[in-house]
Amino acid sequence: MSFAQLDALCRRLEALDHAQAMLGVDEAVNMPEGGGEKRAEAMSVLASMAHEMASAPHIADWIEAAAAEDLDADQTAALAEFRRSYINRTCLSSDFVARQVNARLRCEQLWRQLRAKNDWNDFLPSFENIVELAKEEAARRAEVLKLSPYDAMIEQYDPGSRSADIAAVFTDLKRFLKGFIPEALDAQARRHAKRPLKEFAGPFPIEKQKALGLTLMKAVGFDFDHGRLDISHHPFCGGVPSDVRMTTRYRTDEFLSSLMGILHETGHGLYEQNLPHDLGHWPSTSARGMAAHESQSLFQEMQLSRRPEFWAFVLPLARDILGAEHFAGVEVEDMLAHVHHVERGYIRVDADEATYPLHVILRFEIEQDLVTGKLAAKDVPEVWNAKMQECLGLSTAGNYKDGPMQDVHWPSGAFGYFPSYTLGAMMAAQQWAAVERAIPDAGAQIARGDFSAINDWRRANIWSKASTLSTPEIMRQATGEPLHARYFEAHLKARYLG
Amino acid sequence: MSFAQLDALCRRLEALDHAQAMLGVDEAVNMPEGGGEKRAEAMSVLASMAHEMASAPHIADWIEAAAAEDLDADQTAALAEFRRSYINRTCLSSDFVARQVNARLRCEQLWRQLRAKNDWNDFLPSFENIVELAKEEAARRAEVLKLSPYDAMIEQYDPGSRSADIAAVFTDLKRFLKGFIPEALDAQARRHAKRPLKEFAGPFPIEKQKALGLTLMKAVGFDFDHGRLDISHHPFCGGVPSDVRMTTRYRTDEFLSSLMGILHETGHGLYEQNLPHDLGHWPSTSARGMAAHESQSLFQEMQLSRRPEFWAFVLPLARDILGAEHFAGVEVEDMLAHVHHVERGYIRVDADEATYPLHVILRFEIEQDLVTGKLAAKDVPEVWNAKMQECLGLSTAGNYKDGPMQDVHWPSGAFGYFPSYTLGAMMAAQQWAAVERAIPDAGAQIARGDFSAINDWRRANIWSKASTLSTPEIMRQATGEPLHARYFEAHLKARYLG
Repeated sequence: MSFAQLDALCRRLEALDHAQAMLGVDEAVNMPEGGGEKRAEAMSVLASMAHEMASAPHIADWIEAAAAEDLDADQTAALAEFRRSYINRTCLSSDFVARQVNARLRCEQLWRQLRAKNDWNDFLPSFENIVELAKEEAARRAEVLKLSPYDAMIEQYDPGSRSADIAAVFTDLKRFLKGFIPEALDAQARRHAKRPLKEFAGPFPIEKQKALGLTLMKAVGFDFDHGRLDISHHPFCGGVPSDVRMTTRYRTDEFLSSLMGILHETGHGLYEQNLPHDLGHWPSTSARGMAAHESQSLFQEMQLSRRPEFWAFVLPLARDILGAEHFAGVEVEDMLAHVHHVERGYIRVDADEATYPLHVILRFEIEQDLVTGKLAAKDVPEVWNAKMQECLGLSTAGNYKDGPMQDVHWPSGAFGYFPSYTLGAMMAAQQWAAVERAIPDAGAQIARGDFSAINDWRRANIWSKASTLSTPEIMRQATGEPLHARYFEAHLKARYLG
Repeated sequence: MSFAQLDALCRRLEALDHAQAMLGVDEAVNMPEGGGEKRAEAMSVLASMAHEMASAPHIADWIEAAAAEDLDADQTAALAEFRRSYINRTCLSSDFVARQVNARLRCEQLWRQLRAKNDWNDFLPSFENIVELAKEEAARRAEVLKLSPYDAMIEQYDPGSRSADIAAVFTDLKRFLKGFIPEALDAQARRHAKRPLKEFAGPFPIEKQKALGLTLMKAVGFDFDHGRLDISHHPFCGGVPSDVRMTTRYRTDEFLSSLMGILHETGHGLYEQNLPHDLGHWPSTSARGMAAHESQSLFQEMQLSRRPEFWAFVLPLARDILGAEHFAGVEVEDMLAHVHHVERGYIRVDADEATYPLHVILRFEIEQDLVTGKLAAKDVPEVWNAKMQECLGLSTAGNYKDGPMQDVHWPSGAFGYFPSYTLGAMMAAQQWAAVERAIPDAGAQIARGDFSAINDWRRANIWSKASTLSTPEIMRQATGEPLHARYFEAHLKARYLG
């Protein structure tokens, strides 16, 4: 009876989620600008309706009563995940949430204005307020969840991951990368000296790029009966599992940035499309969290789609679809020189897979100290600069816009989110190692454009688990051991020094 | 305080309406087929959430209490319309509504299968059930609204219109048309004998047709900052007033059907875009109803866009955009021969403006007798055939699929809806007569592609009234007299016999 009440509630929440997801897609893809005000109003009303419905106090009684009912295994897992998300959702007072929402909106707006002006001083008071609220939030979450404050924040994005475990792999990885990056840059210089980088002459018409993108999406397993590809300013993977809406953007002078973006988003899309359908309205059947999601997009983009075998498969298609005239004398090796390019830079979102983790580890170290109070908001630029010097040999002194003001995450109050990116990259490498053990000729299959066995492995070990296990437990069951940095390190060595 | 509660409720209902409208547009325009099942589920859950919220019993108390509060004129009008729609929404028991929804779904499904097979006999039992439920519905509505049963049904679609008034104008119009159609056909034959119909040789590429459609939409006043044009199988005008989503479909062998369809839907779109924004979440600021809406699409399509002056404006644009090679030796007169074509036929949706009303009046007469019980469902084909013979000289004996099985309205239980189409056509003609009195050079303005003064008149007299007045009262205030058939009759005579 109580389970049935929760079941009906989950159906309502699913319908509101569906509406919000699709309104979000439409806003990015189709909506004329003048529709924005009413759209924002509608989405905010729907969001607060959903929040109200999902966090009503009587739900706690339903959960307790349902736990005493005769439930099968799926229902038990569904109830457990619902309880977890209910606790995470309701542990903050609505008073506090309202204060926080206002502060975040203001800080994000300020960030948008002041980042362009490199104005840290005018940004700081608002940012200090955000940090204070984050500390308050973390303390409250920690109390309810019986976790440390920063772990309690991570729990929202990546359930089950603990900062002590993350710190261990990040320390290992940081040590490795500080030595590895100079070696990789040297090796790259030697390769370029032997075989100069081939530039592809455009223009590449959008229709042809789209045709190539659709061909590859289909080849790697995207189901176009349950999804589509559109254009938006910021590429994303949205929609719902039964109807996954991916976007990209095209430039006509080159085709690789859009194509690799499409493959990245397709990794997210495959995860969503292959989640279990039974009890699809319960949170237990949703994707596990940010790190797990990123592991799937990076598995697709970094592990599969930047391999030599993948380009052996793609190059003939690219010649056919984009036109052979763009690829005169081009071999797989020339494509790899582009998709394996390593470069030190200031900006996280522009970083390659080798330097990216250093951007993340820097943020992880800083935000942990912010949340625990070891570091004051005003001292962030100094620490940022010191860490950038240490890791990448770059100075951000006085350069706030390419330093601590470059990301929207902190202004919007998302502390505990950054580690997911690099956890995802490491998970993807460890998953690939497990795939190679299970499918010895996986590389040859990729070269033939056959992703079925690899996708079967992913479906059985990752996608079908949905949110019935914690992120670390999914990794343990899928790969036979906890997350470890060595697979990612071995991957980097093989790709960039091999 | 109670008005404020209703105001908050209206904002929630508006958000749910917004979501449902946009999900509907997305389904028709973008959704892959496999997304349909979950979409249907989400939309049905949202619809029942909205219905539950909008018809909660305590709202009746809020309405009474709000009426005693100190409200300004807009608020008073808003409350009045909210009360009206609340009564119409809540006068049926939820038990009855559930029975009816099931019966309608089944009858619509049967209709889809059996219409193609021309199978009236297997359709009849389900249709009889629908008619019985409609009689029960009409009786219940009549009791609450203190109207006759059929008037109570009309009240859902066209508030304030009464069947006695409709019958009066329809009787006049039917008498006129029975004499007029043969005369119009004779005149047409004479014109064709003098100047043979010019056929336009295609193909007309979709991109060019779209460019012409967008150019005309813009010229007649459609605001692309608050709307757009897409493609769908069944053209429609959907979305919300701040973001009107219109669709068309193209065939490449000719361009007029899509273009005239676009202009028709643009009439609906202009009405929506020009509704008042203040209190936009209250039902008083919505479009008035089906007849009023149809008057705006037909004003655009029939009154404006089939005039000689309109084609004097469009022909040069069509040459430019579609290519002069398609229009060698073509003059405005040749375009008019196409857009003024009259032909007797079986199918309402394919009918021209001269024969269309006879299809509607036939349905009006039959459905009135069905709802009042004067006619049994089983006798509909016989009466249909007799009336088709009388009005259009066509026999539908044994031809059910082109007779009483051609429309989805009755299988889906929409009795009282059909009159709106022809009321709209008559309203449009009467509005045009008023425009010509107010703007003596309206025709010359159209020939210049200047619709600003005409749109100002429409905004002041129709669009801005929204749902603050009944349909007949909008007409009386806009044109100085009640709806009368003579304007439409004079329009037909001038266009087809002139």
